[in-house]
Amino acid sequence: MRDSAVAFAPATVANVGIGFDILGHTVQALGDRVTARRTDKPGVRITAITGVVTRLPLDAQRNTAGKAVMSLWEAQGGQGGVELQIEKGIPLSSGLGGSAASAVAAVVAANALLPNPADKMTLLKCAMHGEQVASGSVHVDNISPSLFGGLVLTVGVDNPRIKQVPVPGGVRCVLVHPHLELETRAARGVLSANVTLSDFVWQTANLAGFISGCYSGDLDLIRDSFEDVVIERQRQTLIPGFPEVRTAAMAHGALGCSISGAGPTVFAWCEAPRAEAIRGAMVAAFSAHGLDADSWVTMIEPPGARIEDGTA
Amino acid sequence: MRDSAVAFAPATVANVGIGFDILGHTVQALGDRVTARRTDKPGVRITAITGVVTRLPLDAQRNTAGKAVMSLWEAQGGQGGVELQIEKGIPLSSGLGGSAASAVAAVVAANALLPNPADKMTLLKCAMHGEQVASGSVHVDNISPSLFGGLVLTVGVDNPRIKQVPVPGGVRCVLVHPHLELETRAARGVLSANVTLSDFVWQTANLAGFISGCYSGDLDLIRDSFEDVVIERQRQTLIPGFPEVRTAAMAHGALGCSISGAGPTVFAWCEAPRAEAIRGAMVAAFSAHGLDADSWVTMIEPPGARIEDGTA
Repeated sequence: MRDSAVAFAPATVANVGIGFDILGHTVQALGDRVTARRTDKPGVRITAITGVVTRLPLDAQRNTAGKAVMSLWEAQGGQGGVELQIEKGIPLSSGLGGSAASAVAAVVAANALLPNPADKMTLLKCAMHGEQVASGSVHVDNISPSLFGGLVLTVGVDNPRIKQVPVPGGVRCVLVHPHLELETRAARGVLSANVTLSDFVWQTANLAGFISGCYSGDLDLIRDSFEDVVIERQRQTLIPGFPEVRTAAMAHGALGCSISGAGPTVFAWCEAPRAEAIRGAMVAAFSAHGLDADSWVTMIEPPGARIEDGTA
Repeated sequence: MRDSAVAFAPATVANVGIGFDILGHTVQALGDRVTARRTDKPGVRITAITGVVTRLPLDAQRNTAGKAVMSLWEAQGGQGGVELQIEKGIPLSSGLGGSAASAVAAVVAANALLPNPADKMTLLKCAMHGEQVASGSVHVDNISPSLFGGLVLTVGVDNPRIKQVPVPGGVRCVLVHPHLELETRAARGVLSANVTLSDFVWQTANLAGFISGCYSGDLDLIRDSFEDVVIERQRQTLIPGFPEVRTAAMAHGALGCSISGAGPTVFAWCEAPRAEAIRGAMVAAFSAHGLDADSWVTMIEPPGARIEDGTA
């Protein structure tokens, strides 16, 4: 039984364009890191928040990581308390699953302190409780991939089923994060409460084609079905230059390009040799709209969150 | 180059519960058979309609098989004309894709008479023209599986992409056709023009889970995601006893149970050893509502439509 543990949880692309609220994949290039330390004093405390984001609540009740660990500690009958140090690697409100990664890293780290560690499904539910603080509702499409790793489908909310979907070898994800912040709540607010039956059919065809293409390694089918006709058109108005960025990515041979989670980060899937050209074209398109951007090229594969240290 | 050819096209379960307008699978137990004969006289004529349905238009323009072959003959520059004999094995308005099977069998038979036979995608489009006569709109979810065979996903309508999705070994389909007729137009008429965003998310999760379960041979995931939360609840009122039939199938261990196409046939997927018990329970449930029913147990696999004779 450890007295302290450090866990890393990767950033994630939620929705992956055609899987609104159900699909997500890891971004190994970025993540949050949480150190958990056992204390005699009961309760969960956050002692430090460092890294690219620091203006987050230190009150554990109002912090995704704190709330998630409170939920875990209660569920597993943990003795004493936990102190958490959070090192943010994921920019705030970027659409890269930062609040989910903090919650996931925190429960994975704290779990290592327990005499009877919880299983992954329990960790998932505790992290969901945590993320509820940030998003105002229960979502798993960032948490599942950050915890399990790779491209992850989540079926159901109360008792979610997790399925890791294989990604064809040689596929990469280009991520471009323009320097503006979008609140998830605001991005959800623009969504219509209804989908037309014809868009429903179109989107389900694309989703089924995308999943089939992933399993069968059929890049042509992935390209032909990698189009969100429901959510993207409603949210793209929040991201200046999005249509041009998307067009630039597709013109350079991307398999698909859409909004990462609630945005403003835009992602594109592509074959590895095209990644750098696509990245450059997307960054240039944002630049033409006066937006600086950070960008990454990442693989789309496990692992998810993991303990990083070997200390006891 | 033949002077005559006989083709068989299997019946099909469209929608397969969670894939409205995009999924369908073959039912090898039933099908339509079309004999095509070359004639010197130009044009397409229907000389006979026999079998379980005879009250169909003999006017080729108003007959799915006739219209489909007219479309094929024109596209491929066929010389002379074609006479068609249609032997119906699929009950009328049963929800088993009878009009699609006639169109598919007809184009496959007529294609064998052409000096330059068309490829399958051309046959698909010609059969779609044919089926438009029967349904009033263009749909491919019966035609694609009847032509290609097995469980088939169709992405897109104008230039559809066809994907054969593997079905785990040992899975069977139980079909129960109660003796009432439902017009496809009427069954489409009950559908709301909109889907709520929450039902959209639920249904897409189920669809993605179902497809993933098929590719990975995960029967538990298929069972957990084999639920149509959008279409079934709107259409089930047209089928007396449907809730009880579905409950009976699930109580006997079905993986899923829903309406075949526009109904009234109800289908259930199951592991082979459970098929006969499920069939009996479903038939009994319809009987309790005063409905006699025909029933079948079928494999879900290729082939699709094929030439049956060896004559020249």
